[in-house]
Amino acid sequence: MALIVQKFGGTSVGSVERIKNIAKRVAKVSGAGNKVVVVVSAMSGETNRLVALTHEASEFPIGREYDVVVSTGEQVTIGLLALALKELGCRAKSFTGHQVPIITDSQFGGARIEEIKCERLTAELNNGVIAVVAGFQGVDPEGNITTLGRGGSDTTAVALAAALKADLCEIYTDVEGVYTTDPGICQDARKLKKVSYDEMLEMASLGAKVLQTRSVEFARKYNVPVMVKSSFTEAQGTLVCKEDAEMEKVVVSGVTYNKDEAKISVLRVPDRPGIAAKLFKPLTEAGINVDMIVQNISHDSHTDLTFTVTKSDFKRAMKLVKEVAAQIEAKDVVGDPNIAKVSIVGAGMRSHAGVASKMFEVLSGEGINIQMISTSEIKISCVVDVKYTELSVRVLHDAFELGKEDVTEEK
Amino acid sequence: MALIVQKFGGTSVGSVERIKNIAKRVAKVSGAGNKVVVVVSAMSGETNRLVALTHEASEFPIGREYDVVVSTGEQVTIGLLALALKELGCRAKSFTGHQVPIITDSQFGGARIEEIKCERLTAELNNGVIAVVAGFQGVDPEGNITTLGRGGSDTTAVALAAALKADLCEIYTDVEGVYTTDPGICQDARKLKKVSYDEMLEMASLGAKVLQTRSVEFARKYNVPVMVKSSFTEAQGTLVCKEDAEMEKVVVSGVTYNKDEAKISVLRVPDRPGIAAKLFKPLTEAGINVDMIVQNISHDSHTDLTFTVTKSDFKRAMKLVKEVAAQIEAKDVVGDPNIAKVSIVGAGMRSHAGVASKMFEVLSGEGINIQMISTSEIKISCVVDVKYTELSVRVLHDAFELGKEDVTEEK
Repeated sequence: MALIVQKFGGTSVGSVERIKNIAKRVAKVSGAGNKVVVVVSAMSGETNRLVALTHEASEFPIGREYDVVVSTGEQVTIGLLALALKELGCRAKSFTGHQVPIITDSQFGGARIEEIKCERLTAELNNGVIAVVAGFQGVDPEGNITTLGRGGSDTTAVALAAALKADLCEIYTDVEGVYTTDPGICQDARKLKKVSYDEMLEMASLGAKVLQTRSVEFARKYNVPVMVKSSFTEAQGTLVCKEDAEMEKVVVSGVTYNKDEAKISVLRVPDRPGIAAKLFKPLTEAGINVDMIVQNISHDSHTDLTFTVTKSDFKRAMKLVKEVAAQIEAKDVVGDPNIAKVSIVGAGMRSHAGVASKMFEVLSGEGINIQMISTSEIKISCVVDVKYTELSVRVLHDAFELGKEDVTEEK
Repeated sequence: MALIVQKFGGTSVGSVERIKNIAKRVAKVSGAGNKVVVVVSAMSGETNRLVALTHEASEFPIGREYDVVVSTGEQVTIGLLALALKELGCRAKSFTGHQVPIITDSQFGGARIEEIKCERLTAELNNGVIAVVAGFQGVDPEGNITTLGRGGSDTTAVALAAALKADLCEIYTDVEGVYTTDPGICQDARKLKKVSYDEMLEMASLGAKVLQTRSVEFARKYNVPVMVKSSFTEAQGTLVCKEDAEMEKVVVSGVTYNKDEAKISVLRVPDRPGIAAKLFKPLTEAGINVDMIVQNISHDSHTDLTFTVTKSDFKRAMKLVKEVAAQIEAKDVVGDPNIAKVSIVGAGMRSHAGVASKMFEVLSGEGINIQMISTSEIKISCVVDVKYTELSVRVLHDAFELGKEDVTEEK
């Protein structure tokens, strides 16, 4: 008998019929003698509908009342799923964020979970009741309703699993797991059996939208094993867990890409202390996130500074940077939105040398010019011309033999 | 400076545009220096949509989870109205039933308010905040979400007004007030300036669907003056309040009718103690409400017993009564769904004789046969053939001179 937290996203509960299918899956796991907590999102489309209503009512709706409106989406789903479970003869009870309670800070629209009080849920689970919990929401210490921000249901599930010391957290989604790369680009992309928290974090933030980054951070912090699998098929998913010796054997686990960034270069910046701070402060103040930053050694007391921002921030960022560039007497500012970031990720990089040079060789072998390079312990990213995105992904996937059988696969 | 509770129903908040109009009205009252609590229903159509979802998920959805789903309708409205009020520069905050808290019993789908804790609301009101409260919902002592049943938003408003010792409770609806009779039937129907709680109760239960019966009972119990008025015009409404000397001068305040009942007669019932109980017990057990009951003196130790039920219960009631009739050796059971109940209501009846005989004379003067008669202190009801409904209403309205100027009108 295990304690399992299962999370079903918006498309999995997109209609009452789908909710009934989910109920059957949950009932089966519960019927096998497991304690089950189910976390659900709003029915697909519902959150968008509610958000649109708030924007009709107010020019800047984000705040306490926005959360009051938007949190109703999940509340509807928990009630319906509990009804569907009862219809199957299960004992089930729904819980809103404040009924659990899931206590968060008061940052409306993007609150962070501070504490989950488990007494109530534990009592119900020990009583044989399936607990159906609203994802994405909580309550602040003053009793105000809060939401965790988009995708927050994953975080709710992982946080509940951590608080309840669950044996497993299953995240059901519309993909079957985590792949070595985008199967839409690379035909022999392969589903991974296992991936480490760190690898998943690098992949999630690089564009493989399988799990919310925050939920993976939570899972890593509390060491919660997370199984990502499809809510529509019975296929085996991908287990996101602590790095083990087996994983380190695999140098590269996946190739990811991101076409949503743009590059800005500030040319011939006087190389004085405090210049970089002066350059990035206005961007921070404008809420613009900077991703990669590259600064090389200087010549004649001048250097070039290049960084990337999301495409949607590109125009605003260019305007702000041009203003500062004039003040600090840089020579020029050059922007290019036609770029892509291609990355290889793998826990095994830590113990294997020569991965970076192999990546550069592979790309240059295809005549692809590398515009920027950035590395972390388990990731190497290169910025290339956007037209080479798919080619880069394919040659790297091949070169690191990712189409081959997963060595972490259980025999 | 007064403390005013205002309640707006589903059509008044049927779209974000209408919610913005309501916000303007509320802002005006608040801007004049009053403390304002606003109670709102779900946007029109929303409760029906949510109820339909629960019926899709479960054959018998009524219970804890039904309330979880259905209560979200009001939660959306409070958030949107609070946003719209802020957009106008007001300070406003929304409150769900559990945030107030409005404590009810645990009868899901039809809970009764047991206590309202006012500390939080009072503090906010003293702070200059407009409190926007979700109607129709509460929380039971275990923290479960409850709903008060259809139309419960009126009760929420009146109960809040009672608990907060408000100076006035305004119920905004899609009619302009309480009329002497249905203006659709009688062209010279007139809006009443004032009506007593007792009169309103008789009128509401007889079919003038202006205020929920339970809310009027609440208002009477705690002596809350309730103003019924239109949410779409600025017209003066009808004040529902304690009976005063002026009201007693008016013998008849209104004529109401109800076509939604059916008549069942049990013929030649043996006149023995316990027979009536035997007859009605199965109906009670089946949840069938009996309205009028008439039993006359007996002949040869036998009597006829006639009663009415709602049309929707007619067939079930006939079946049950026929079974009992056979057991108690009654001669026969005869049913007739083609009836209407026409009533005159007036606080002045208490002190004026001859009202009943005048009613009977007026009806017989038109050749209308009276099938059943039932009276209370301030009401006389007659059952007639349904085809005479409109005629009966018109001649009674004329005979009691209800088209004349309201004597309770302020000069």
